[in-house]
Amino acid sequence: MKTTAAQASAAPASQLRFRDPQIEMAHGAGGKASRRLVEGLFAPLLGGALLEPLADAATLELDGTRLALTADSFVVRPLRFPGGSIGELAVNGTVNDLAVSAARPLALLVTFVIEEGIATATLEAEVRAIADAARRAGVEVVGGDTKVVERGNADGMYVTTAGVGRVDPRTRCAASAVRPGDQVLLSGPIGDHGITILLARGDIELEAELRSDTRSVYPMVESLLAAAAADVHWMRDPTRGGVATALNELARDSRLGVVLVEEAISVRDAVRGACELLGLDPLHIANEGQFLAVVAPAAAEAALAAVRSVPGGEAAAIIGEVREQPARTVLAAAAYGGTRVVDMLVGDPLPRIC
Amino acid sequence: MKTTAAQASAAPASQLRFRDPQIEMAHGAGGKASRRLVEGLFAPLLGGALLEPLADAATLELDGTRLALTADSFVVRPLRFPGGSIGELAVNGTVNDLAVSAARPLALLVTFVIEEGIATATLEAEVRAIADAARRAGVEVVGGDTKVVERGNADGMYVTTAGVGRVDPRTRCAASAVRPGDQVLLSGPIGDHGITILLARGDIELEAELRSDTRSVYPMVESLLAAAAADVHWMRDPTRGGVATALNELARDSRLGVVLVEEAISVRDAVRGACELLGLDPLHIANEGQFLAVVAPAAAEAALAAVRSVPGGEAAAIIGEVREQPARTVLAAAAYGGTRVVDMLVGDPLPRIC
Repeated sequence: MKTTAAQASAAPASQLRFRDPQIEMAHGAGGKASRRLVEGLFAPLLGGALLEPLADAATLELDGTRLALTADSFVVRPLRFPGGSIGELAVNGTVNDLAVSAARPLALLVTFVIEEGIATATLEAEVRAIADAARRAGVEVVGGDTKVVERGNADGMYVTTAGVGRVDPRTRCAASAVRPGDQVLLSGPIGDHGITILLARGDIELEAELRSDTRSVYPMVESLLAAAAADVHWMRDPTRGGVATALNELARDSRLGVVLVEEAISVRDAVRGACELLGLDPLHIANEGQFLAVVAPAAAEAALAAVRSVPGGEAAAIIGEVREQPARTVLAAAAYGGTRVVDMLVGDPLPRIC
Repeated sequence: MKTTAAQASAAPASQLRFRDPQIEMAHGAGGKASRRLVEGLFAPLLGGALLEPLADAATLELDGTRLALTADSFVVRPLRFPGGSIGELAVNGTVNDLAVSAARPLALLVTFVIEEGIATATLEAEVRAIADAARRAGVEVVGGDTKVVERGNADGMYVTTAGVGRVDPRTRCAASAVRPGDQVLLSGPIGDHGITILLARGDIELEAELRSDTRSVYPMVESLLAAAAADVHWMRDPTRGGVATALNELARDSRLGVVLVEEAISVRDAVRGACELLGLDPLHIANEGQFLAVVAPAAAEAALAAVRSVPGGEAAAIIGEVREQPARTVLAAAAYGGTRVVDMLVGDPLPRIC
């Protein structure tokens, strides 16, 4: 779960509302439990009342330049999977947090916690993955750190990436900028990353040609901002907790409703099949190469065209709209007339996904 | 080990000189093995020929402002120890890397990898330690991330901190700025942190009143820069690998020699006693609240007075000087006339020290 204290104003410690006696996997899953941990423990102690717990990056104004700052730890298991690896994920994840903060990624720092005894070839493969992903994303790795822990710890390695970007001065994305009537744009098919990891672990018996969608979304965001910067009101990359959790955060923070058109949301057959087998909702599955944007209705067509014009953005679609009612709620309407409430992720059906 | 690619120019992969077949604890200890890993694997792939592997922070020029960027992962065992804890260390460690890069710390990002099942009280204690240390250091925690891994991993928690600071425009610290005759200033007694951790683990039978020196060194650096900014040629915080490793890096990078006056280096009795018992050199033991500065001879007196004027800097001393010869070497001269070569740390006598 991302924690961002744009403006800190520390609340008294008596306001700690987090009462769970111990930390469970779900507290790291990006859903409801993560939000309770951040809002009930981290925010009162570190950030205070004005904290925006799910923002993807913090901003820092410096001599007139707005910087975006973000950091994420990666603990994905296995280290390598179809379509990517922990190193590639660590670069793209941080690049994407900057991108959806309307920031051009400038520099990354990468730190490793490595398990004693892993083959040098394993580490080298991830350093190469980082170098390649950084090159593709047009961002420089300017520094880092390495720690080694004893055998049996860290599952090979954990990677933490911090990133700095320059915020596009034409934009002021925030939940508070979202208005009823705004259109919800999604960049492509959902669930590929989460289900790929699940299959790579061999936890379920399912043969499928599926790859993680890990990639930089910045080229798509850049094209979108060039076409409609002032009309882009909110962006988010739906990683842990999926599209459902990201849009529930938006609904909650904006106090508005989001109504999705179920058929407009692209889900590959393999993802849909695995979800049905496991009783999961594709809207809860993590993505690592998609983003959501909320745009003013007048700009929606241009925004969609801009994203679709970028290689990899061809499947972008308008998947729903923001409404006055039902406030703080996400609904999905099916073509045949049914409507269901789409909740945040609860629990952690797919641990260690990123 | 800190990796910093001030100017990247990726070398061909064929230049990988790191031949160790697997990663060992020593590769994370900050000494010779760490340097080989960084120079032989990370640098050719990520940074290239001009990488300064042991610099404490990278710099980024942005619209005329020079930013310092740094990140460190903390895996110290135990989580709490006399004088501090992992959370406090994570803040001060990153603040100090910025400080010795002549940068005023502005913002921190903190990420956690938490072991499933730890008591919330354990996490809360570290979040409080982070909040308190950040307040004392005058820096804001603007964001972060939380991941949870299964029981048996991560020893409670690992903490990674990234920091951004603004570089003092009056300074250009670099090994290349150091000249023969320059004086070496040390802020206080050495080895407190490393030996405190060792004792806290109960690995040796020794009763001693010793506390980690973890603290922000920025107030001392600020006072030093106010008094002698242009005459400060190099700074470093001697953490993993200790004063010996930091000064060997300087000797190597500047191609000059460093001659220390053994008696001028303050070492508490408890630290000296533990080192004698274990056959360790206090110059190799990690510090978390000290810094080294190399200053022009004419400014040495003012520099020393400036550091000593700050609470906690009273024990600062000039501990040696830079000489033309013996090039790339650190010597320690004792009052009775003996002189010994002080090498970099080899191996990892005290693992998981930070």
